[in-house]
Amino acid sequence: MIEKEVPESQKPQTFLRDSDKGSSNSSSTVRGRFEKMIREVQDSVCLALEEVDGGAKFKEDVWSRPGGGGGISRVLQDGAVWEKAGVNVSVVYGVMPPEAYRAARPTTDNGDVKPGPVPFFAAGISSVLHPKNPFAPTLHFNYRYFETDAPKDTPGAPRQWWFGGGTDLTPAYIFEEDVKHFHSVQKTACDKFDASFYPRFKKWCDDYFYIKHRGERRGLGGIFFDDLNDYDQEMLLSFSTECANSVIPAYIPIIEKRKNTPSTDEHKAWQQLRRGRYVEFNLVYDRGTTFGLKTGGRIESILVSLPLTARWEYDHQPEEGTEEWKLLDACINPKEWIC
Amino acid sequence: MIEKEVPESQKPQTFLRDSDKGSSNSSSTVRGRFEKMIREVQDSVCLALEEVDGGAKFKEDVWSRPGGGGGISRVLQDGAVWEKAGVNVSVVYGVMPPEAYRAARPTTDNGDVKPGPVPFFAAGISSVLHPKNPFAPTLHFNYRYFETDAPKDTPGAPRQWWFGGGTDLTPAYIFEEDVKHFHSVQKTACDKFDASFYPRFKKWCDDYFYIKHRGERRGLGGIFFDDLNDYDQEMLLSFSTECANSVIPAYIPIIEKRKNTPSTDEHKAWQQLRRGRYVEFNLVYDRGTTFGLKTGGRIESILVSLPLTARWEYDHQPEEGTEEWKLLDACINPKEWIC
Repeated sequence: MIEKEVPESQKPQTFLRDSDKGSSNSSSTVRGRFEKMIREVQDSVCLALEEVDGGAKFKEDVWSRPGGGGGISRVLQDGAVWEKAGVNVSVVYGVMPPEAYRAARPTTDNGDVKPGPVPFFAAGISSVLHPKNPFAPTLHFNYRYFETDAPKDTPGAPRQWWFGGGTDLTPAYIFEEDVKHFHSVQKTACDKFDASFYPRFKKWCDDYFYIKHRGERRGLGGIFFDDLNDYDQEMLLSFSTECANSVIPAYIPIIEKRKNTPSTDEHKAWQQLRRGRYVEFNLVYDRGTTFGLKTGGRIESILVSLPLTARWEYDHQPEEGTEEWKLLDACINPKEWIC
Repeated sequence: MIEKEVPESQKPQTFLRDSDKGSSNSSSTVRGRFEKMIREVQDSVCLALEEVDGGAKFKEDVWSRPGGGGGISRVLQDGAVWEKAGVNVSVVYGVMPPEAYRAARPTTDNGDVKPGPVPFFAAGISSVLHPKNPFAPTLHFNYRYFETDAPKDTPGAPRQWWFGGGTDLTPAYIFEEDVKHFHSVQKTACDKFDASFYPRFKKWCDDYFYIKHRGERRGLGGIFFDDLNDYDQEMLLSFSTECANSVIPAYIPIIEKRKNTPSTDEHKAWQQLRRGRYVEFNLVYDRGTTFGLKTGGRIESILVSLPLTARWEYDHQPEEGTEEWKLLDACINPKEWIC
């Protein structure tokens, strides 16, 4: 497992271990440049969210681990616009138990091999934004860079590295123009790098956010990729940066449009039911959450993704043709939002 | 996996397959007698809960599976006293995938053996009762009987059978007299059978309802046992019956006392936070839930255990010495309630 985190009163310039910082500063390594990027994105996203809220401010918690690594958790709770918004960056050095390694990267295991504990490095930004208004969608984004240490028994063998991430939208009600705008921004970011990315990562997102026991997806998707290492490392670093920088233009215009839409108790109850599905997905299926719970990560940072409030009604089924039914139908049968 | 269930308009006399019913009726087999017992307990508990509520009635769903088995789900939602109360019986014939078998009965696997799919029979009553008043505790009870088919490659070898179950209390606030009363009733039921049962099953309960990632238990325990087959089968059937029949005297007097206690929004918010912990335990750790989700059980019956509403606040920590802190402390450090 990993060491217990300790609170810090000040943000260090970097959470990297000295041995990872490179010759003069951390900017020369991919680890260092990725950390710098996610910290800048955290700053810009939090600023944009505070501006939209028009009053509430993020509360910041800084923490570190004795052996290296740490993080900055920022949470805005019960604002004017935001019910709960969390934007976290973390840099983690740890040793994965084999189960967690499988949860983190199942595609490389062949099932027969039982790997021992695996030393790893992981840096990421992770954010879930739950607005109050039932017509304003929830957003999730997460961009991460992962390395396992070079194997000790094979001198000169390279360390493994990969990128993962995605941005996805979870509304309780569909406004087609909003969903199209959101997906367009994702596609534009993808198309700058590879024409195959958007269709591939859009489908990956639909497949990933699947709540198997419900036969439905958590929301209306976006993009998702994981274990990505079969492209140039610099290209993937730029691609992750582009995606992370697309969060504000993809999402904030939708919130501006919907944050004050009048709603009824019934709209709110439906939003709360969909938040229940969000909880189900995150606790039962989400790789990052299950990985974090297994490796002993900082619980409050991991579970900040859960909504402030959620609801489970027995056997609730929206009537066919209603707005609630339309949303559910799109979660069951994913659509192409861009023709 | 198991077959998809179909709704039924009427309750059959038994959900057993013809081959399981014995010569004249189902009362001669343990399967048949266990089914009869849990259906009687379902009736008596639902009646008692409706009486306490003083108005609301349970909604009943009957379902069956083409190859045998079925169940009766009863739910009372948004009553005067009950926020959500579910009392289900189910009789399931299925084939477990190896992972689910491990989740259902980990202690018998030695880890190296990879078992193939395992045909099984399971009958059980399962109930979670969430009252509205924050001073009225949530109750969970579950009693189940389990068999795997006799191995086909070993003629004459017996089928495996075991009993499992328990009753546990999850208050948001501690009233010591309530918790003592509840545990006393459990002890009395246990002591009729074996003096070792209460201390052993009380500890098993504290260990089982542990939310590992929080370092705290879901509630204040009660009794829990599983994989119990090293006593006389008749004795364990009687013991399960005694425990199930103790639910009403253990719980209803507490609800009568607390159902109308005046409370504030702060009390309610704390109750909702503890309900969030309930959701975390059930979705991440509970054997019955994870088993049901993996085997494709009836989702609405499985997840009726989730509260109507729950809440997650970032980094909420009750102030030392408060009533909220006392509850949390007892969840972190389990106490002996009977001296």
